[in-house]
Amino acid sequence: MGQVVYDVSVSLDGFTTGPNDGPGQGLGEGGERLHEWLFDLASWHERHGRSAGSQSPDSEMLEEAFEAAGAVVMGRRMFDLAEEPWGDDPPFRTPCFVVTHRAHDRIEKAGGTSFTFVTDGVESAVAQAKEAAGGKGVSVAGGANVAQQGLRAGLVDEIHLHVVPLLLGDGVPLFGPDTAGIELEKTRVADSTGVTHMWLRVVR
Amino acid sequence: MGQVVYDVSVSLDGFTTGPNDGPGQGLGEGGERLHEWLFDLASWHERHGRSAGSQSPDSEMLEEAFEAAGAVVMGRRMFDLAEEPWGDDPPFRTPCFVVTHRAHDRIEKAGGTSFTFVTDGVESAVAQAKEAAGGKGVSVAGGANVAQQGLRAGLVDEIHLHVVPLLLGDGVPLFGPDTAGIELEKTRVADSTGVTHMWLRVVR
Repeated sequence: MGQVVYDVSVSLDGFTTGPNDGPGQGLGEGGERLHEWLFDLASWHERHGRSAGSQSPDSEMLEEAFEAAGAVVMGRRMFDLAEEPWGDDPPFRTPCFVVTHRAHDRIEKAGGTSFTFVTDGVESAVAQAKEAAGGKGVSVAGGANVAQQGLRAGLVDEIHLHVVPLLLGDGVPLFGPDTAGIELEKTRVADSTGVTHMWLRVVR
Repeated sequence: MGQVVYDVSVSLDGFTTGPNDGPGQGLGEGGERLHEWLFDLASWHERHGRSAGSQSPDSEMLEEAFEAAGAVVMGRRMFDLAEEPWGDDPPFRTPCFVVTHRAHDRIEKAGGTSFTFVTDGVESAVAQAKEAAGGKGVSVAGGANVAQQGLRAGLVDEIHLHVVPLLLGDGVPLFGPDTAGIELEKTRVADSTGVTHMWLRVVR
């Protein structure tokens, strides 16, 4: 069975978005800088339908993460803010399960991406994602709220952090009071230009 | 002229102490785990007057940090909580400058450590420490409040973080809203058992 992995870029002061995120500014003020390390990677461009960017260890790592995920879990707010920028051919190319209080018909996009709206909680969304993943892993894409719910419920096996040396000061915090005491084991660290990757295993 | 370096252990969720720090529990609940990586290092034991512990890259790094510091700046709360555990021969072996609102006579300890109480702000404390350091560097020991004041005032040249994969949930945050926008350049990362060291330069 594949692992449930929360993969996220985070500022050095612990935010996954900058302040005042909302429509047209899904990553908050300054939050796009959290993802700058991705923008030159060949595997990032490939997932966005372009042939461009650099081959590098970061690009290979990202490609591995994409390949490992047989399904994706995300929150409704992330979906609402990102659906438009993702366009008709989102980068996931797998079934995605959106945790929400508001029911919505399943949406089919090009390239193998679909969005199924799950109204009975993150546990159900992860279970449905595992089923859909066909033995591959499940990627928890965010936002941090859904990821924290998954962590608290013991549903997440691994966290892959991409720490960017940026001080945002405010925004959506990666962790919170409710994630206190969750035991993590650092399994690998890889430093790169403008980002430090940390792999952590959730100890049960 | 030596650099002004803020050297600090921090949890993965960004706290320099656990919750409810106070007398008898200077590091807060669970906060002592932030410093466990130090406890087996030969250079740590040496500074505490003992011949014990392991020689290792971490031990050499700590020894270099001790050697580089010709003076230390700290906050009054840190001093108040730690004076007793430090004992008569504190590990600094240099002049220390304590930022405080409450005047106090200078205190001389064994081994070259002294505490001078500075009532006219962190800028004055750093200036006095630079003067006393005789060309060596100044170590900002904490707490985070004084370090943030120093960062905001542009007094800190480097941050050496020791990131421990621990989720404390609450406590004294390393960074805050007021440190937003300070530009940092990551200059080096070294991974070790139970801790990841990150060196950052403050860009001016």
